[in-house]
Parts: sequence; C-alpha cells; structure tokens
Amino acid sequence: MKKVLLCEPNISEGRDRNRIERVVEAVRRAPGVRLLDYSSDADHNRSVLTYLGEPEAVLEATMAMAREAFDVIDMRQHHGHHPRQGAVDVVPFVPIRGIETPEAVEVARRFGRYVGGLGVPVYYYEEAATRPERVSLPAIRKGEYEALPAKMQDPAWTPDEGPSIFNPKSGALVTGARFPLIAFNVNLRTADLAIADRIAKAVRYVSGGYRHVRALGIPLADQGMVQVSMNLTNYVRTPIPRVLETIRAEAQRYGVTVAGAELVGPVPLGALEEVLRAYLQVHEFSMDQIIETALLE
Amino acid sequence: MKKVLLCEPNISEGRDRNRIERVVEAVRRAPGVRLLDYSSDADHNRSVLTYLGEPEAVLEATMAMAREAFDVIDMRQHHGHHPRQGAVDVVPFVPIRGIETPEAVEVARRFGRYVGGLGVPVYYYEEAATRPERVSLPAIRKGEYEALPAKMQDPAWTPDEGPSIFNPKSGALVTGARFPLIAFNVNLRTADLAIADRIAKAVRYVSGGYRHVRALGIPLADQGMVQVSMNLTNYVRTPIPRVLETIRAEAQRYGVTVAGAELVGPVPLGALEEVLRAYLQVHEFSMDQIIETALLE
Repeated sequence: MKKVLLCEPNISEGRDRNRIERVVEAVRRAPGVRLLDYSSDADHNRSVLTYLGEPEAVLEATMAMAREAFDVIDMRQHHGHHPRQGAVDVVPFVPIRGIETPEAVEVARRFGRYVGGLGVPVYYYEEAATRPERVSLPAIRKGEYEALPAKMQDPAWTPDEGPSIFNPKSGALVTGARFPLIAFNVNLRTADLAIADRIAKAVRYVSGGYRHVRALGIPLADQGMVQVSMNLTNYVRTPIPRVLETIRAEAQRYGVTVAGAELVGPVPLGALEEVLRAYLQVHEFSMDQIIETALLE
Repeated sequence: MKKVLLCEPNISEGRDRNRIERVVEAVRRAPGVRLLDYSSDADHNRSVLTYLGEPEAVLEATMAMAREAFDVIDMRQHHGHHPRQGAVDVVPFVPIRGIETPEAVEVARRFGRYVGGLGVPVYYYEEAATRPERVSLPAIRKGEYEALPAKMQDPAWTPDEGPSIFNPKSGALVTGARFPLIAFNVNLRTADLAIADRIAKAVRYVSGGYRHVRALGIPLADQGMVQVSMNLTNYVRTPIPRVLETIRAEAQRYGVTVAGAELVGPVPLGALEEVLRAYLQVHEFSMDQIIETALLE
C-alpha cells in the first residue's frame, strides 16, 4: 500500500447500539479499508470512527458511512453535551503516508460534493477551507444545529457544497483535511500547577511559542505531579524533540525535571523520524530504512 | 502479515549475471515473499539476497533458492576473496516481527533437514548451533571449502544434517537463526584515531564493554574525523541509546563531541522502540501505537 489516508468521522449518535453498528458496518464492509477503532460517548451522544486505506478506498468507505448515518440519525431528536451541527458532524481526512495535504484536500472536496448532492449543506474546514473564517471547526459550528435555519439565510454562511436550505434531519456537515495530530504529554516532578502553566505558555502558539503547539497545564493529583498536556498539529514543522527540549530547559529554570512523557493513541511513523534524527544524530536517517515499510508497498 | 521472518543467504557466485539471476528469480517467483535487495561482489565472487515474508513462505522460497544455486554453482570452479565453504554458503534466518528466535531456529532446522536430504552436509550456527564450537560462523568455516574432505573424516565435524561425505560440487552449507544486526556508526569531531579506538574498546564486548556490541575505530580521512563503527547484535538487551550515551560520555573525557551518526541499511521497527522510550521518556510507548503497523496485520 503506497498511499495511506486516514479518516476519522464524528457522528451524532453515541447511545443507540444498533444505529452505531449499522454505520460502523458500512466501513467494515468497504473493500480495501481497515477499521482501526471506534468509540462512543453516551453523554456526548457521539461516536468517532477511525479507519484507513488507499485514498480511493477511504473515499468510497466514507460515502457509504455517510449514507448509512444520514439514514439512521435524525438531528431533530439529538441531544448531547458535545457541540454538533449535523448527523455526520465532522469528517477529517488525514494524510499518513505517501500522500501530501493537497491530495487529502481533493478527497475531502470529492466527498463534500457527494454529500452536497445528497441535499446536505457542506462546509470545508482546516486545509480545505475556502475562506479564512471557515478554517476553524468551532467557528463554523458556532450556534450548532439550532442556528442552521438562520445561517442558511445569511450570505456569509452559504454552504461550500449542497443547497443553502436547512436540512432538518441531517443538519450540516463539515469536512476537510488536516495534518495528523500528535497528543504528547510531559509529566513534571512537582505538584506546582503554576510551573506547568508557565511552561505550557512558553511552548504554545497563542502565547508566543511554537507555531504548531497547543498546550495546557493540568494537575495529576493522584501522582502528586503536574502535566504539560499538548497537541502537536504539525510534527514536520514543529517536531516533537524541539518541543520536549524547550520544556526540559524551561523546567530547569524552576529546578524541576521531566518525570516521564506519553504519546497518546496512534502515531504516524513519520512523526518519529525527527525524534531519531535529533537524539541519535543520524542526520540522514529515513523511515524508509525500516524493514517493515517494505511490506506496506 | 502477523509474522515477519527475514532471510539473507550468501551464495558463492558474484560474477556470472545469468547464474545470479536464476537464483534471484527463484526467490522472486516464490509466493508471499518480498525480495528487498540483492547485491553481488565480483572480487568476493559472492552475492547476498535479502527477502522476507511469513515464515512458511520464506522457508519455501529458501528451498527453491537453494535448489537453483546447487544447480548453477560448481564449487570446483569457485575462486574469490571472501571465505566460503559451499555453493549456498550461509543462510541466516532473522526474526523481524511477531516471531521469536526459537521459531526462527525451527525454520532453519527444517531448511537444514531439506538440504541434508539433497546430499549436502549442513552445519547449524548461531542460535541454531548444536555445540558451542559451532556457534561462530568463522569457526565452522575454518579451512574453507578446501578443508571439507578432511573434515568429513573427522568425528568432531560430523555434519548436523546430511551425509558425512564430501560433496565436491556444492561443498557444505551453514544455516541458523540470528537476531537482526544493527549497523550503527558514530562520527567524532577529531582526527585522532586513538580516541575512536579507545571508545570502541570501552563499548565492545571482547574488551569488557556491552554484551552485544562489536566495535572498531576507523579513520574518515576525507572528513578529518574518526568513527566508532559498530554492529549491535541484540538491540533488545543492548539497546542503541545506551551504547550512544556511553560513547558520548567517553568522548567527553577527551573533550571530543559526536558530530553525527549513521544507521546503515535496513533497521527493524523494534530496534527503535527503546530509542523513543529513552530519549522522549515515554516509558509506556509501544511500536504498536504506530498507525502503519495496523496495515501489517
């Protein structure tokens, strides 16, 4: 498999097992696609599916998944704690291997046109956004499902695909492409939350840190420690070791050391290349040297 | 593919393109096996093939490869600079993924029995060795092809499989299982070879260093540097970062720094797990978290 695209749709059903299974089954049945995981949250009344494969296969699977979800989910009956605006709420396509962002954007656009053709308004976000104010998902989703009838009247919110007509059953769908997200947490040998806060502030974009870091200080009460909890949104431009070394240096100012760290959930192989290069000083190392990658081709 | 076994046979033909191609073609034709690489050396008059797949498929491919090599190679006409004792000189099986050494040994033994049945004497080496004095390849190969007629008379050199009768055309074959070898070189910011020699001595097994390190100091004249050139023979028990940190500490004694390093050739994914754990302090990290590994199963 030369190209690997991942898709992680969030659907607005997290309680009814039968409905969830029907949507998941549409992905399982899709040829050439591997379902990695799915999980549901009853409070949020929301499920997340994760699957991957070659781009064409993933597109087909996602169309089948959406058809099924539009069929079984009725937004007029949906309540949950998580913000949402549609039955198939958000569908990010994530390039993993041998595929660049523009190609993932193209898949998102083809999916968007398909959904628009089914009569569901579609907005493109992140790398697929058509206007700056549509880059951010929370910005698009503001007011949620309940705001859609008014939005459909507002020229600022004309959908990117599909009719500018409120769809009561399915709401609206947001799709696009984004870089793989790395969830990286660093635990500090102190119980002083102020230190984690200051370090988080030092590394995160919004307060002057690295371009592709979101960070928060949080207490780990049961361990008597604090954590710098992060999302790295572009591991190529803001690589993991650079962020970790900055944290180590900042922690040193307070006489604090790093107790440990976590890479949470799935990590693309490519995110680790810079880790090896930086710490082993193997300046020319390529992940293609890894024996197992021969089996992916 | 749950289990991945690699095989790296060395055959005693490195000049005649047609013969080499016939042997390589036997592997290419084998179902379920991927040929990663092959290379020939005319001076050595020797070729090395590298391929991998599920254990059964690799065994079948290796039997087909050996039949072809026994057919096209005649040791009575073989001359070359590299030590050798047989047409199919040495056949190491290397566990890469989801397979432990004993299973690789079992494959080597099945291959050995097959070759013995073809009338070629077989010796087991490394992890498959039947006696301590047969663990090392150079020990078995001592005297080379030319010593075989005398060895076949010597009870100490009774083959592990096959007849104790000199086979003039094919010589003898050595097979077994060994852990994947990591070729790791560290370049130092000095032209003083004595420093590379001392550091090599500090890390390598024979002079009191790590159990699974072979090391040598060599000059990199064109770069005005020296190198600690290493083979790590068991990356689980003697992991890469431990060796590198020892080199950094030893280098510091001479006021020398590490300029860079190289991981040469193919590296199994598993060898990198400890690199990530050590330098990122991700104590719980597992290579199974890498998204692409889902595609190997």
